[in-house]
Amino acid sequence: MKIICSKSNLLIGVNTVSKAVPSKTTMTILECILIDTTKGEIKLTANDMELGIETIIEGEIIEKGIIALDAKILLEMVRKLPDNDVTITTDASYKAIITCEKAKFNIAGKAGEDFSALPQIDRSESISVSQFTLKEVIRQTIFSIADNFTNKILTGELFEIQNDILKIVSSDGLRISLRRIHLKNSYPAKKVIVPGKTLSEISKILLGDTEKEVNIFFTNKHILFEFDNTTVVSRLIEGDYLNIDNILSVDYETKVTVNKKEFQSCIDRSTLLVKEGDKKPIILNILDNVMELKMNSVIGSLNEEIDIAKTGKDLMIGFDPKFLIDALKVIENEQIELKLLNSKSPCFIKDEEENYTYLILPVTFNSVK
Amino acid sequence: MKIICSKSNLLIGVNTVSKAVPSKTTMTILECILIDTTKGEIKLTANDMELGIETIIEGEIIEKGIIALDAKILLEMVRKLPDNDVTITTDASYKAIITCEKAKFNIAGKAGEDFSALPQIDRSESISVSQFTLKEVIRQTIFSIADNFTNKILTGELFEIQNDILKIVSSDGLRISLRRIHLKNSYPAKKVIVPGKTLSEISKILLGDTEKEVNIFFTNKHILFEFDNTTVVSRLIEGDYLNIDNILSVDYETKVTVNKKEFQSCIDRSTLLVKEGDKKPIILNILDNVMELKMNSVIGSLNEEIDIAKTGKDLMIGFDPKFLIDALKVIENEQIELKLLNSKSPCFIKDEEENYTYLILPVTFNSVK
Repeated sequence: MKIICSKSNLLIGVNTVSKAVPSKTTMTILECILIDTTKGEIKLTANDMELGIETIIEGEIIEKGIIALDAKILLEMVRKLPDNDVTITTDASYKAIITCEKAKFNIAGKAGEDFSALPQIDRSESISVSQFTLKEVIRQTIFSIADNFTNKILTGELFEIQNDILKIVSSDGLRISLRRIHLKNSYPAKKVIVPGKTLSEISKILLGDTEKEVNIFFTNKHILFEFDNTTVVSRLIEGDYLNIDNILSVDYETKVTVNKKEFQSCIDRSTLLVKEGDKKPIILNILDNVMELKMNSVIGSLNEEIDIAKTGKDLMIGFDPKFLIDALKVIENEQIELKLLNSKSPCFIKDEEENYTYLILPVTFNSVK
Repeated sequence: MKIICSKSNLLIGVNTVSKAVPSKTTMTILECILIDTTKGEIKLTANDMELGIETIIEGEIIEKGIIALDAKILLEMVRKLPDNDVTITTDASYKAIITCEKAKFNIAGKAGEDFSALPQIDRSESISVSQFTLKEVIRQTIFSIADNFTNKILTGELFEIQNDILKIVSSDGLRISLRRIHLKNSYPAKKVIVPGKTLSEISKILLGDTEKEVNIFFTNKHILFEFDNTTVVSRLIEGDYLNIDNILSVDYETKVTVNKKEFQSCIDRSTLLVKEGDKKPIILNILDNVMELKMNSVIGSLNEEIDIAKTGKDLMIGFDPKFLIDALKVIENEQIELKLLNSKSPCFIKDEEENYTYLILPVTFNSVK
């Protein structure tokens, strides 16, 4: 094989597919990136058997061929090459020579034939959203997936399509994040669970362009994302997701309208009294026109008051400050609404159109002086 | 005690003195910052017994007093306060109340009287350099101090004054970095060894202004740096530094002039073939008009040629690539000169005026195909 392409094209391509290279594996072929030019285009592929990414880069094919090269070494090497044309030449014994200006690297490759191809996906059912929307919605929900494997389903996010609405839900059992996206067309109903890792890797390679689309295809076992010159294929998580409709339809008796930034800064300040690994609630004492926030720990105490608009009953309730901060961070509105029932029931942060809903369970606390 | 000062002034002050707070200590009073307003100014002090920093911040003293507050908590707290006036009030039982807008923190302090004062330094012998020069010269030498304590003297840097020249030297035994600074005046001869930690902490708090001066005072046991509203006092390392004059006066038989950036990029590329913790030399084969650079490892090999101007004999010599990169990084000149004697003798990188000299010992290598 012999190809010539610009350092910048090669770098973008290698960087993109690297996201599907497993950090730990016993199968060294999975640590490689496949360069395949047999079909007349330069295609890079990586595949950790759950998640596979392929991308096509521009360049000149002098001699067709196929080779697998160690992903980490290739990425480092390309990064450090001068900004000029790069030539990759391989021989029958899988030796690769990479030259750029006067630099000449020799590295050992592997037979491309040993590489696992990405699964073939039937492209009949699909939806389309902008790159910006997909990248944003991942950021706005990914923080509340479960990070351990005691409940595999909660390590993924629900993608649910109903007519022209795409609902995306994540939950770690103590909170729920929900975002609703309006699609341009109506589609048949669909419910799948997408691994969190897939979503976080995709959001790293999406440029977040509002003008460019991502096509998303579904099968029973897989989801496929197609954008720019890149295709991402991931297994789905099998099983049924939480039935959140009941949980989310709870009534409320107290409604608080508060300035988001002020609320967030105050909670943020309270966290410095919490030592790492320690759990201390922040206590909200909701009164007419004012909300008192209190935090007590071995380090000291914080008291602060924030102006609010309130309807309904007074209420004192405690939360893990991290959970409130996580949700507030990804809400863009200047004013937000908290809806509460009592000190044992979850708090809802949602906008009027219900484009977002963040549910957070309260924590118990010792009664405060 | 009761003081009022702006959040930004307080933050700069706390941040500055924090550099002298030990990260690990069994004496909890050393983890504190002393706030002392008994002399009619707001003075912050931290002191790890080797290195002490004090700084004076602007603000209003409502009631004089003295208190020691945990440095880490104070720094975090001030960082997270709104950008407004901060009031610190303490009572007889060392409770501190810190308020800013509607936020009110309570933390426990310690008696200021338990805090160790900085040593009194005789201010008769001093020199003066710009903040920029001091910050730069530390950056240009600090990387080659020894990082372990088998030879305590090499964990510091030599500051040697001869007439109007300040010579600063660091060495880890395998390389020497030397910078010469021209002072505005002549001073009596002086030789001291300043701990590397002191220098790296000072370079963090120096803003690097070319217009502002640092006054440096010497005694037999201490060095004192005075700039802006800040005073840094450090113990000196006792003993005699290496006698480098003999080492540096060696002759050469090969002189190479090379583009610094090109040389540095090439060595940088070669390092990706070296796994962490591994030691592999880069081999320079110096010929007429061209220098070949070669690196061989289990990962692969790199060959590259760079155009040079050479006088004297051909030479093949190997170096730890990291040592070359460290020196090249801090040299600003576009073209540099390497002076070499033979494959067992050190390489000198120096400018014509000898404002800088970097000496690097070669390493042996297996003869190359």
